[in-house]
Amino acid sequence: MLGYAFMGKAHSNAFRKLAYMAWPPPLVPRLVAIAGRNEEAVAEAAQRYGYERWTTDWQDVVSDDTIGLFDNGGPNSLHAEPTIAAAEVGKHVLCEKPLGRTAEESFDVWQRVAAAGVKHLCGFNYRFVPAVRLARELIDEGALGEIRHFRGRYLQDWGDDPTLDTWRFDPGQAGSGALGDLGTHVIDLARYLVGEMKSVAGFVKTFLPGRRVDDALEAAVEFESGAVGTIEATRLALGRRNAFQWEINGSDGSLAFDMERMNELQVFTAGESRTRGFRKVLVTETAHPFMEWWWPPGHIVGWGDTFMHEAVHLLRAIADDSDVAPHGATFEDGYRASEIAEAIVRAGETGRRVELEFRT
Amino acid sequence: MLGYAFMGKAHSNAFRKLAYMAWPPPLVPRLVAIAGRNEEAVAEAAQRYGYERWTTDWQDVVSDDTIGLFDNGGPNSLHAEPTIAAAEVGKHVLCEKPLGRTAEESFDVWQRVAAAGVKHLCGFNYRFVPAVRLARELIDEGALGEIRHFRGRYLQDWGDDPTLDTWRFDPGQAGSGALGDLGTHVIDLARYLVGEMKSVAGFVKTFLPGRRVDDALEAAVEFESGAVGTIEATRLALGRRNAFQWEINGSDGSLAFDMERMNELQVFTAGESRTRGFRKVLVTETAHPFMEWWWPPGHIVGWGDTFMHEAVHLLRAIADDSDVAPHGATFEDGYRASEIAEAIVRAGETGRRVELEFRT
Amino acid sequence: MLGYAFMGKAHSNAFRKLAYMAWPPPLVPRLVAIAGRNEEAVAEAAQRYGYERWTTDWQDVVSDDTIGLFDNGGPNSLHAEPTIAAAEVGKHVLCEKPLGRTAEESFDVWQRVAAAGVKHLCGFNYRFVPAVRLARELIDEGALGEIRHFRGRYLQDWGDDPTLDTWRFDPGQAGSGALGDLGTHVIDLARYLVGEMKSVAGFVKTFLPGRRVDDALEAAVEFESGAVGTIEATRLALGRRNAFQWEINGSDGSLAFDMERMNELQVFTAGESRTRGFRKVLVTETAHPFMEWWWPPGHIVGWGDTFMHEAVHLLRAIADDSDVAPHGATFEDGYRASEIAEAIVRAGETGRRVELEFRT
Amino acid sequence: MLGYAFMGKAHSNAFRKLAYMAWPPPLVPRLVAIAGRNEEAVAEAAQRYGYERWTTDWQDVVSDDTIGLFDNGGPNSLHAEPTIAAAEVGKHVLCEKPLGRTAEESFDVWQRVAAAGVKHLCGFNYRFVPAVRLARELIDEGALGEIRHFRGRYLQDWGDDPTLDTWRFDPGQAGSGALGDLGTHVIDLARYLVGEMKSVAGFVKTFLPGRRVDDALEAAVEFESGAVGTIEATRLALGRRNAFQWEINGSDGSLAFDMERMNELQVFTAGESRTRGFRKVLVTETAHPFMEWWWPPGHIVGWGDTFMHEAVHLLRAIADDSDVAPHGATFEDGYRASEIAEAIVRAGETGRRVELEFRT
Repeated sequence: MLGYAFMGKAHSNAFRKLAYMAWPPPLVPRLVAIAGRNEEAVAEAAQRYGYERWTTDWQDVVSDDTIGLFDNGGPNSLHAEPTIAAAEVGKHVLCEKPLGRTAEESFDVWQRVAAAGVKHLCGFNYRFVPAVRLARELIDEGALGEIRHFRGRYLQDWGDDPTLDTWRFDPGQAGSGALGDLGTHVIDLARYLVGEMKSVAGFVKTFLPGRRVDDALEAAVEFESGAVGTIEATRLALGRRNAFQWEINGSDGSLAFDMERMNELQVFTAGESRTRGFRKVLVTETAHPFMEWWWPPGHIVGWGDTFMHEAVHLLRAIADDSDVAPHGATFEDGYRASEIAEAIVRAGETGRRVELEFRT
Repeated sequence: MLGYAFMGKAHSNAFRKLAYMAWPPPLVPRLVAIAGRNEEAVAEAAQRYGYERWTTDWQDVVSDDTIGLFDNGGPNSLHAEPTIAAAEVGKHVLCEKPLGRTAEESFDVWQRVAAAGVKHLCGFNYRFVPAVRLARELIDEGALGEIRHFRGRYLQDWGDDPTLDTWRFDPGQAGSGALGDLGTHVIDLARYLVGEMKSVAGFVKTFLPGRRVDDALEAAVEFESGAVGTIEATRLALGRRNAFQWEINGSDGSLAFDMERMNELQVFTAGESRTRGFRKVLVTETAHPFMEWWWPPGHIVGWGDTFMHEAVHLLRAIADDSDVAPHGATFEDGYRASEIAEAIVRAGETGRRVELEFRT
Repeated sequence: MLGYAFMGKAHSNAFRKLAYMAWPPPLVPRLVAIAGRNEEAVAEAAQRYGYERWTTDWQDVVSDDTIGLFDNGGPNSLHAEPTIAAAEVGKHVLCEKPLGRTAEESFDVWQRVAAAGVKHLCGFNYRFVPAVRLARELIDEGALGEIRHFRGRYLQDWGDDPTLDTWRFDPGQAGSGALGDLGTHVIDLARYLVGEMKSVAGFVKTFLPGRRVDDALEAAVEFESGAVGTIEATRLALGRRNAFQWEINGSDGSLAFDMERMNELQVFTAGESRTRGFRKVLVTETAHPFMEWWWPPGHIVGWGDTFMHEAVHLLRAIADDSDVAPHGATFEDGYRASEIAEAIVRAGETGRRVELEFRT
Repeated sequence: MLGYAFMGKAHSNAFRKLAYMAWPPPLVPRLVAIAGRNEEAVAEAAQRYGYERWTTDWQDVVSDDTIGLFDNGGPNSLHAEPTIAAAEVGKHVLCEKPLGRTAEESFDVWQRVAAAGVKHLCGFNYRFVPAVRLARELIDEGALGEIRHFRGRYLQDWGDDPTLDTWRFDPGQAGSGALGDLGTHVIDLARYLVGEMKSVAGFVKTFLPGRRVDDALEAAVEFESGAVGTIEATRLALGRRNAFQWEINGSDGSLAFDMERMNELQVFTAGESRTRGFRKVLVTETAHPFMEWWWPPGHIVGWGDTFMHEAVHLLRAIADDSDVAPHGATFEDGYRASEIAEAIVRAGETGRRVELEFRT
C-alpha cells in the first residue's frame, strides 16, 4: 500500500473486511507493507491497519518479493512511477483515479503496465456501488432499449474555502481540480453505463481567486451510439456534499441515481399504464449485486463498502486469471477518462467541439 | 383570444378566475371574442369559456375597438402577424412563447409591437410560479451571494410516439421542436434568475426517424456574471412528464426546484452548522408571492394557476401603466430567448461556441 | 351559499369553475344568494364571487324557491339548523364537515335530511383528490388484495399560537378541535378506502393552557375486515402545514399518500422482483380520475380543485338522480365519522376500547 | 460470542472493524471463542471471523477465564441463562434484544446481571445510528422545546410468506413476533428520545393462518412528560423492507427519520419565516456523532456500522469504568422495553388502557 490518508484508509479497510465479509474470499490478503512520506504517520497507519511493516520509501515495497499486489492510494503525482515500477517487477497493481495527471501520463502508465502482463485496476470505485452495477445489468439486459440521454453531475461544496490547503489544489501534484477528482468519475460511469463518447463541447472554470486548479466543468457530450447528454462537476455546489447524480433515458425506460442515497436506484419502465412512475428500488435484496455478502434485505451498506467490492473483484481476477473488464475499470479505462477530461479543457480553450480520438 | 386548445383553455381560465380570486382585481376582464380556425370548435370554446362572440378570422378580433387586450395562444406560426396587427391598432398584447419561429421573426414582433407603445408580455408563465418568484426575491435580496452555477433541464416524454401528429412537429408551424417549446422556458428562467448569458456551446438532436424538428438539446453555458452551467431539454425522457428542474448554486447558498412539485422550493443557506441541509419550503405561506389570493398555508395551487398570476400582472401593468418587466417577460425577453435558442443550433452546426450578441 | 370565509371561497370557486372546466357540466350553477353574519363582508363576497344577492339571514336563502341547492360552509354550530331547514323545503344540500358538533347532532341532521328525500353530500372533499380516487379504484380492482393496515395522520401546526382566536377554538361553535376538524377527515378516508371500523382505543389531548378544545388525538383501530391501524391528528406538528398522510398495506400491495404532495400516489405491487419498489405515480394522466377536465399529463392541479370535483359529483347526482354514494360522502357518512370521533373521546375518558355501534 | 448467524455476523464484524476504524480504540478486542449449536456452521464461523476457537457448548465460553466480555447474539430463548451465567463469573455482557422472551424473564436477567456488578448492554443498536444520536443531542440541548408527539412505526414485509420457518416464528424460542423483534426497537427509541412512558392502549394482531406469534402491533401511548403518540410495528407492510420511521414534534421544532435512509435526519426549527421547512440533514459531518471515525462529509455509513459504534461504546465503558447509560441501553432498558411490550398485549386482551408500572 502506498498512502495512508483518505484512500489508504478506504483501501486498507476493504482488504481487512473482505477476508470475512465476502465469504469465501477469492484470496485472503496479507497486509505486508505500507509506504508514506511522513514517518510518524505511516508508522501509526501500519499499526492501525495491521501492516506487518512500514517504510517511507515506496521502492522498498516495490522490491519486496513477498508482495503480489501493489495498491497505490497516494497523491496523483505519485501514481505513475511507483505503479509502473511495481508492475515491471511483476506485481499486480491497483491505482487510484485519475490514473495520471495528464492524458499523456495516463497513457504511459497504461502502456507500460499492460506490457508487464499484470492485472491492473483503476480505482473508479463507483462501478462497485450495488445500484450502479444493477443499472449496468438492467442496461445489458436491454431494459432501457436504445439509450438516448445521459446526464451526470458530481456536486460537492468543500472547495468553497479559500484558506484550504491540500495537494488537491496544487497543479503539480493533482494535475487538475474538479476535473480529475470528480469529472473523471462522471466520465467513467458514463462510459461504463452508456458506452464510448464521440465528442465533447464545454469548458472548465475556476472561481476562487488564487486557486490554481479548476473548480468546475460543464460539458455537452455525444456518445458513439448517438446518445447525448451533459457532464458536470463542481466543488462549489453549496449544500451538496457528495451528490454524484445521474439519469439515463432510453427508448424503453429510465434510471436515476444519487450517491447521497447510494442504496437506491430509481427505475422507470415504459408501458406501465395507470400506475406508471419511477420505482424507488432499495438495492439491498439478496438478488442484487454484492448483497449476498451483507445483510438481509432493507439493511443498507455504506460508501466505504464499495472499495471492498472493488478489491474482491480484483482479487478474483488474480486468483482466476480472469479479466478485470468490463466491470472493473482497467488502466485503459483510466487513460480514456483522462483523454476525455483533457478534451473538455481543450474545447473550452479553443471554443471548438472536440471529436475524441483515443490512442491504442 | 386567439386559440382555443391547450393555451386557449389555460388563458381563458386565468381571465375568468382572476376576477374573484385575485381580489380586488386590477381590472375585471370582459371576454369579448375568441378566434380559431375550426368553426365548430371555436363556437364551443366561446360557449364554454363565456366569450361574447367567436370568429374564424382573427382580423375580426383585431379590428374590434371594444377589445383592449389581444391574447395570442395560437400555434407559433400565428404569433407574429396577428400580434403585430393587434398592437398596431393600439391593443395591449399577450403572446405565448416562443415569440416567433425564429430569432428574426421574434425580433420583428418585438420591434413592431414596442414601436406601437402598448404593453407586451411573452407567456413565460413559469416566472409566475410562486416558488420561482420566491427564488427571484431571495436572489435579489442577496441570499445566494454571487451565483456560480445554473443547471436547468426540462424533461418530458410525450415525444416518444412516432405516430403522433401535431403542429408541434411541423417545422413550418412550430419553427423548432423541444428547443422552442421547452428550451426557451429554461433559457428564460435562467435569464430571469441568473442574468444574461454570454456564450453557449452544445447542439440539438433529433432521434425519431422522420421527425422534422429537434427532440432534444444539450448546452454548456456561460453567463455575463461569470456563472456557468448547463441547459437541457428533451421530449424523450421516459418517465418525466413535466420535469422542469433547475438548481442554482451561489457563494452563500443554493436553490433547487422541480415543476412536478411546483409548490416546493429547496433552499440551502451556508453557515448552518450541525443541522446544515436543504430546507424543503412549501411555498404556500401568506407571505409567499401570490399566496395572499389563495388558501391558508399548506394548501397547494395547481399548474393552471400560474397563468392567473401572469394575467393579473399584465392587467396591473395596463391599469397602472407600470412596467411589465422585470417580473413579466417582455417581448424583448421573448426575442432574446429565441436568439439564445438559435445560438445553440448554430453551435451544433458549426462545432463552435457561440458568443451571444443581441440586437436592440 | 352560507358562509363567505375559507369554505365559502372554496365552494364559490368550485361552482364558478366547473361551468367551463368540467365540460360539459352536468348542470350549470346559477349563484343566486349568499348569506353571512357580517353585512359588509357578505356584500363584498357576493360581489366578488358573483352571487346575485346577499343576506345576513340564512332563512332568506332557505325560503327562496329559485334555489335548488343549499351549500352550507358556515361554522359547525350553523350546520344543523339551516341544512335541515333547506332540505325540508326540498333543496338538495351540501354541508361542510363535521356534519354536526356531536354524533347526536350529526345523526339528527342525517335523519331529517334523508327523510326529506333530497340529495345530501358531506364535504369530505379529500375523497375527490385524484390520487385518492385512484387509490379507491385500485383497491376496488383488488390490486392490494386483502387489506391489513391503515395508518393515517393529519398533521398541521397552526394551532401552536396561544393568541389565536377563532370559532374553531370555541367548543360551542366548533364542538371539538383537531378531532372534528382533522380527525374526521382521517376517519372518513379510512372508511372510504378500507371499510367500516369495528373498534377504537386511544384518546384526545389538549396541550395549550386555556385551550378549550382538543389539540390532538391518537388512536389504534380495528376494521370490520380485520385490518388494523392507527389514526392521528394534531394541530401542533411543527413544520407540517397540511400533511394528511396515509398508508395502506394489503396482501398484494401497498399505497402511500401525502396531501402536501397531493398529485402523487406511491404504489407498491408485490411480485416485482429485482426492481421492486414503490412507484411514484404522478396522478395527472388523462386516464386518471378527474384529469380529463384538466391539462396534459404532468401538469398538476391544486388543493382548491378538489372542491370542483366534489361539486360536479353532486350536480351529476342531482341531474341524473343518481346516488351520491359511494364516491361522495353522504350525511350518513358524516354521522358515522362523528360517531367514531366521539368513540375516541370516550375511549380516552373511560380507558376502555370502544366497540363501535352505529344508529340507523 | 454466542451465535453465528445474523447477529453473530453483525457483532463479529463490529469487533474486527473497531480495532482500526474507531482509532484509537478504547480496547482492542481479542476474539477468543464462538459458540453455536451446529458444529459445522460454528467451525466455519470461527474461521471466517477469526475466533481462536469454537464450541457447541456455550458453557465452555462462560468458563473460559481469558474471556472478559460475553456477547450473546443467539435466539431469544438462549438469552437469559448464558448471559446470567457469564455475568455471574464476572464477565461483562452484551445481549441482543429483546432481553428475554417475557418481561418476567427480562427482569430476572437484569436483576441477576446487575447484582454481579458487571457492565451490561442490551443490543438496541439503533441508538447508535449517527442520526439518532444527533436527534438525542438536539433534544438534550432543547432544540425541540417541550416534546408533544412521538409517532414511531417499524415496517417490514418479510413476514408475508406462509412457508417461512425460522425460530422467530416459534413462541418458545422467540417469545413473541413483531412485538419483541421490531416493537421493542420502537419502544426503546421512544424512551431514549422522549422519555419514559406512562400508559398504552392498543393491541397485537396475527394475520397469517397458522402463525403462532403476532404479525403486528398498534398502540396509542402517553409519556410521563405529557407527550402522546403512536407505536406500530408490522412484518406485513409490503414494500417496506426496513422502514423504522419516527417523527417527533415539540413546541420549538420537529425531527423525522427513516431507517431506509439512515444517514439523513429531517430537522424543522420554528421561527424560520419565509424559508421555513424541514432541513434534510445528511448526518456525515465531522461534527456529527461517530463520524470522526469515518470518511469526509457526504460519504455515508451502512447499517452494519451501527454495531461498531455500539461495541466501541461498551468497550469504553469497560475500559474507563464509565456508565453504559444514558446512550447505551442497559439491561434495565431491556427489561422496561419488554414490560411495555407486554402491556400492549395486555391492553389488547383486556380492552383497557394499561398504566405502566416498572419493577425496580
